[in-house]
Amino acid sequence: MKLQTILDSIKNINGKFSERAQNRLDNLTKPQGSLGRLEEFAKQLVMITENQRPELDKKVVFTFAGDHGVADEGVSAFSKAVTQQMVLNFIDGGAGINVLARHAGAEVVVVDIGVDQNFGDNPPSPPFNKGGKGGFISRKIVSGTNNIRKGPAMSREEAEKCVQVGIELTNEYAKKGYKIFGTGEMGIANTTPSSAITAVLTGKTVEDITGRGTGINDETWINKVQVIKDSIAVNNPDPSDPIDVLSKIGGAEIGGIAGLIIGAAANKIPVVVDGFISTAGAVIAYLIEPKTKDYMFAAHRSQEIGHQALLEKIGLKPILDLDLRLGEGTGAALAMLLIEAGLKIYKEMATFAEAAVANKK
Amino acid sequence: MKLQTILDSIKNINGKFSERAQNRLDNLTKPQGSLGRLEEFAKQLVMITENQRPELDKKVVFTFAGDHGVADEGVSAFSKAVTQQMVLNFIDGGAGINVLARHAGAEVVVVDIGVDQNFGDNPPSPPFNKGGKGGFISRKIVSGTNNIRKGPAMSREEAEKCVQVGIELTNEYAKKGYKIFGTGEMGIANTTPSSAITAVLTGKTVEDITGRGTGINDETWINKVQVIKDSIAVNNPDPSDPIDVLSKIGGAEIGGIAGLIIGAAANKIPVVVDGFISTAGAVIAYLIEPKTKDYMFAAHRSQEIGHQALLEKIGLKPILDLDLRLGEGTGAALAMLLIEAGLKIYKEMATFAEAAVANKK
Repeated sequence: MKLQTILDSIKNINGKFSERAQNRLDNLTKPQGSLGRLEEFAKQLVMITENQRPELDKKVVFTFAGDHGVADEGVSAFSKAVTQQMVLNFIDGGAGINVLARHAGAEVVVVDIGVDQNFGDNPPSPPFNKGGKGGFISRKIVSGTNNIRKGPAMSREEAEKCVQVGIELTNEYAKKGYKIFGTGEMGIANTTPSSAITAVLTGKTVEDITGRGTGINDETWINKVQVIKDSIAVNNPDPSDPIDVLSKIGGAEIGGIAGLIIGAAANKIPVVVDGFISTAGAVIAYLIEPKTKDYMFAAHRSQEIGHQALLEKIGLKPILDLDLRLGEGTGAALAMLLIEAGLKIYKEMATFAEAAVANKK
Repeated sequence: MKLQTILDSIKNINGKFSERAQNRLDNLTKPQGSLGRLEEFAKQLVMITENQRPELDKKVVFTFAGDHGVADEGVSAFSKAVTQQMVLNFIDGGAGINVLARHAGAEVVVVDIGVDQNFGDNPPSPPFNKGGKGGFISRKIVSGTNNIRKGPAMSREEAEKCVQVGIELTNEYAKKGYKIFGTGEMGIANTTPSSAITAVLTGKTVEDITGRGTGINDETWINKVQVIKDSIAVNNPDPSDPIDVLSKIGGAEIGGIAGLIIGAAANKIPVVVDGFISTAGAVIAYLIEPKTKDYMFAAHRSQEIGHQALLEKIGLKPILDLDLRLGEGTGAALAMLLIEAGLKIYKEMATFAEAAVANKK
């Protein structure tokens, strides 16, 4: 399906459903509003799904993996080979996202959308989604992006294809009955394109939105800032054209995440946006179609300093604030536990009448 | 056992265990420190339990219920009868704490420590802890406190007995193999004694630490502030004597919570402190024995404005900030999910060596 057709199908969520949900929430055995954001989560789920009794029984976190040519510029504390090594770790179930997704009752699906390594046609380590391991899907659009300090990360066509990958995954997983999606990513050096996107799309200075990524020292940070400035200068992306920004200074996994969010909105499925890199994808989706915002939950406030600027740009309030900066979808998995808590309150608590408890005087 | 003997048995947690836990955390397949507070939680659990592989398989939230004579002063939006009605709701499994404790895999035990209603010797609605219902324990010390605007809430002996109830419960539940405790409470009007305690023990003005409780209007709030001021003036509690403060302007459930925290520390068991009223209990425990702080997790930052002052007094940083103000232990149950997430990361993630991932350059 053409992107424009999908975008045209996205609607703002419906306030009529919010009123009905609020009415139920206000009759549960608690002071009105006393469960704070948990009540908001329940309302948002009802509005997104247009269902008075939504379910979250099937959950999945998509961890999009991609490499970055700009890793050659010495912007990361880790070598580029770690991207592919971590993909194998995801498949094997040993990474942070695997542990936290298991804790949240969610599956992990690793999507090779741009890793500079051929994993072959078959998943490198089946079984698929068994025993807490991660599933693997090959949807490779690029074998790593080009070095953005020297030119565009990828062509416009490739960027559009990355977005399409995300959308197609939502269609497939909606058909399979999944009720909530989480975004995640792995890609050594990917805070560099994310900071570049943040600077271009929020208008903040590069210094103000560039963080320490996986843990770089002062010298490397100074270099990283210069690399980002050079990348923006060399590519001159058009802030009014999100696909131009994505293709010139973005990354394959960031495009996949943008597509996942667009597709979630088109399918009326809630999507939990992880940290800084995921929110760089979210802001691309938001600028392509602002109505996507209604379908997003911001999982947490990352320690990466650029994250706050992106959350403000979209107008999202994070659920958690735990000094996380791992990515992979780890914050999204944790936030799913709290979103589900809100839904359970809404569905399982007794009303004043049911429990014979006197309401407010 | 005498209170002083129990207090003497409480030790500061051991930094030696922190170093060992940090060493493992730093070898897991993630940038060092990138899981932020989840890593802290794991370290604190290792230090508290003095066990390199702690477990959290058996969890329990104690919801202490008590009535307050000061409810007669029109400080609450709900009538006093709601305390006993909610006890029955807890037992029946329909309250917020039941839903969230089930979500967190924790049991709920309702403790009648001061309800102004006789539930009889037998639990009013068995089965005990079956089918997601709450268990019931009768440890009634008072049948509601006296009206603190007119005199002390209870005698010093009664206050000490309330603390003993909490300690005895930790001993019993430690023997039964429970690995983490949560605090909770129910008691119409109990933000009033909690605000009084906060004012006396933090030195803040009553206006600055008095909130809206279950949702009172401006007029009722002005009255509530005056009632708290009068209660402090009439009773003149000694801020250097926490039991004096508890007996004069506190409540039975607040004493039970203080005892639960003291007993948790003595048993080397982590205790998750819920919101404002629970933290009023926690500050009593902390001032009786400051080493108890090491065993506490602050579940969340309540919407009740006095809560922040209490957290600062003890020096605790809350885990969640979701605008909750229900109490019952609801925040504690949610926070248990995140503390457990930290432990699972620590125990289940692969190391760099195990996963053949290259560490930082």
